[in-house]
Amino acid sequence: MNRLTVVGIGPGDRMSLTLAADEALQNCDLIAGYTVYVDIVRPWYPDKEFLATGMTKEAERCRLALEAAEAGRDVCLVCSGDSGIYGMAGLVYELRGESEEPEVRVIPGLTAALAGGALLGAPLTCDLAVISLSDRLTPWELIEKRLVKAAEADLTIALYNPASKGRPDHLRRACDILMRVLPKERLCAVARNIGRDGESVETMSLGELAGYPADMFCTVFIGNAAARLIGGKMITPRGYRDV
Amino acid sequence: MNRLTVVGIGPGDRMSLTLAADEALQNCDLIAGYTVYVDIVRPWYPDKEFLATGMTKEAERCRLALEAAEAGRDVCLVCSGDSGIYGMAGLVYELRGESEEPEVRVIPGLTAALAGGALLGAPLTCDLAVISLSDRLTPWELIEKRLVKAAEADLTIALYNPASKGRPDHLRRACDILMRVLPKERLCAVARNIGRDGESVETMSLGELAGYPADMFCTVFIGNAAARLIGGKMITPRGYRDV
Repeated sequence: MNRLTVVGIGPGDRMSLTLAADEALQNCDLIAGYTVYVDIVRPWYPDKEFLATGMTKEAERCRLALEAAEAGRDVCLVCSGDSGIYGMAGLVYELRGESEEPEVRVIPGLTAALAGGALLGAPLTCDLAVISLSDRLTPWELIEKRLVKAAEADLTIALYNPASKGRPDHLRRACDILMRVLPKERLCAVARNIGRDGESVETMSLGELAGYPADMFCTVFIGNAAARLIGGKMITPRGYRDV
Repeated sequence: MNRLTVVGIGPGDRMSLTLAADEALQNCDLIAGYTVYVDIVRPWYPDKEFLATGMTKEAERCRLALEAAEAGRDVCLVCSGDSGIYGMAGLVYELRGESEEPEVRVIPGLTAALAGGALLGAPLTCDLAVISLSDRLTPWELIEKRLVKAAEADLTIALYNPASKGRPDHLRRACDILMRVLPKERLCAVARNIGRDGESVETMSLGELAGYPADMFCTVFIGNAAARLIGGKMITPRGYRDV
């Protein structure tokens, strides 16, 4: 078939797949991806062949998937959330370069900001920024600059990768930077294990968020100036004049 | 059933629905929404009852949907793209207030940035901002400020509502503002009619974008400093060190 489809699988529950993603995964003959994501989809498509690679092996993973497609297979490369946002679609195109073989398709998926936002209520009704706190590929100084500018612009901010074992204090550092611009009372929230066992949400102030024990399974939301709790939900009113 | 489900239907093609959205729409007994979005889903669920309201009637639409749910019906309120991002979920919660009736659920959907990004290649692999150029609910001065800060932060920017009949020159004005910060050669793109008849994408420079005849069916992408064309696709390389 000589085709590689980069599939965003959403946060981790099968019902968050799009019909297009489900169809592609059902009809392909090899599902490739990072071990953790392959283990998520394996029970949904138990009869498929799987090719799992470990953490930080992004280029190797994409190369193997491209090679399998070039060898005539119909391959899906799965990404958690969206296939583009912090996903593998870009790297696949980079590695394929100017070649037209194999055919590459990208199927988008629900990124954590959307899935977490729906759990929390409606924090993302207005203009927003998505910023990762991982400094593996982005210098920390640039991340700091982005946080400050996004806060100055009164954007609602979704923070990805707020912490990991190797950088347990990134969320505290980010909050300290944000509090140079925003009041420590600003409404914030954490969505944890979205679409997976132990799914939960919590709302808190920016000051409280600075001390929150986040991990790599958390997505963090920083409200804009209008954000508030309504009926226990985090809402950003848009200001409809007929309300 | 006394339930209102706010459903993000994605860009407009049925395959972009999530399994959860499809299930909710199949099982409800009334589908409410803006006329244009109701007309999109009507052929997919021809046996349902529909309740369509006109443009700018957002609060009326949400009130009618809440009232139908309170009266015992299982109602889906459909939103184009995501149910949260510029969608109706926030307004529904605002209007319900502190009441616990009816039950409200939010099902997220593929917002145009994700769907358009996948068509273009992978422009959104890194930190990003989503900004609407509609000044119906947001003062233009604040939109200008957000554009400048997002550009200064080297965020990839997805622009929603780049133009409409009432504000045909907003995209030009936005580009003029962005060119105070960004070079006019910066890679940009337009995705038009995503998921609908006449779907197309075009890439161009920021200078060219300023003269582009955008309409309300366009989603615009402003690349960050790393964005480039690879094999005809708009890609933002993330800088994996093992490539």
